[in-house]
Amino acid sequence: MRWKASDRSVEVVGRQERKRLATRKSIFDSAIHLFREKGYQATTVEEIAAKADVAKATFFKHFPKKYELIEEMIKQRRDKIELAAVDEQVGQLAIREQIRYLMIVLCQSIETDRALAIIALNEYLCSGEMLKDESPMIELFHQTLERGKRGGELRQDIPTRVVARMLWSYYLESYIAWSRDEQGQSLESMILEGVEVIFRGIEDAGA
Amino acid sequence: MRWKASDRSVEVVGRQERKRLATRKSIFDSAIHLFREKGYQATTVEEIAAKADVAKATFFKHFPKKYELIEEMIKQRRDKIELAAVDEQVGQLAIREQIRYLMIVLCQSIETDRALAIIALNEYLCSGEMLKDESPMIELFHQTLERGKRGGELRQDIPTRVVARMLWSYYLESYIAWSRDEQGQSLESMILEGVEVIFRGIEDAGA
Repeated sequence: MRWKASDRSVEVVGRQERKRLATRKSIFDSAIHLFREKGYQATTVEEIAAKADVAKATFFKHFPKKYELIEEMIKQRRDKIELAAVDEQVGQLAIREQIRYLMIVLCQSIETDRALAIIALNEYLCSGEMLKDESPMIELFHQTLERGKRGGELRQDIPTRVVARMLWSYYLESYIAWSRDEQGQSLESMILEGVEVIFRGIEDAGA
Repeated sequence: MRWKASDRSVEVVGRQERKRLATRKSIFDSAIHLFREKGYQATTVEEIAAKADVAKATFFKHFPKKYELIEEMIKQRRDKIELAAVDEQVGQLAIREQIRYLMIVLCQSIETDRALAIIALNEYLCSGEMLKDESPMIELFHQTLERGKRGGELRQDIPTRVVARMLWSYYLESYIAWSRDEQGQSLESMILEGVEVIFRGIEDAGA
């Protein structure tokens, strides 16, 4: 039985798993390198496999479709923000600051590598994934807003799902606008302006 | 000289132009009929030309690429909202009501033909058009908000471009969410909830 495996076999499985992850990482890193150099569409699976020094079959065992490399990039970005969302210190901030912080984390991974960020955006939009499933980021914003509502920092009548979808869509639209404009505003400042609007509203209270 | 053309030649040009527009409309209507019946991808240019009873070359004279039929659909929708935006009676409403009205007009053309609206959305997102140019709808929202700011209905410190981009992206995200959910909420009510949030903000003023 597996849970009675000897220390030695556990060690072997550990080694095999480490080897599997190292191969996966090598394929992923080679792909990223090539995407950055010549673009996603122009990079073939053969080239990625050659650069990572693995057989084509090995490539497909790890990434059944080339697009799964883009999914892996998106997943890594998402892991970072999910980690930030459960950070205890972040949890002690005001809700407005928590939302700002999550947005900053999202922007950082994009702004540090512009070329790659644009490739990922292009492929994500053209993949049709958006149409299939709601982004898990929406649920993350939703939970954060719900905590703010329970804590009395947000109005009790706000539809938190609507606001979560708004934060997400505004993030994506800013990402697109930023990708068009080489010399323009930083993505982070564009997005934080939007967060401000959502928190304060736009109506003149005196009007 | 053209501006001295006799009444007769003006009449001929008029007749030719009317004929050209009638052919274009016939191709467009045939395409829409086929898209609705079997989807965009499965419909060939040959089938559209056959249904409209024109040669393939005539099709391409009017729509050099199949995707231009989708652009025509989007353009027709845009024309409707642009017409609403310059309507004098609409211009007399409060800014909040003007934005709500523009959103309602946008939703109506989508909700009256769900199947077609989903086809147009799919093709628009996958076309990469979004990445090339900002939607003209953003400028339209922007101008409306600027009028509201000048009129003192909106706070003087709001970044109207940011809010215009937010309205647009929230509209698009709602359209996507609505396209996924057969039995769900109406698109109009989803969007109007968002407009409410943007106008009032989400913070508890007492907190």
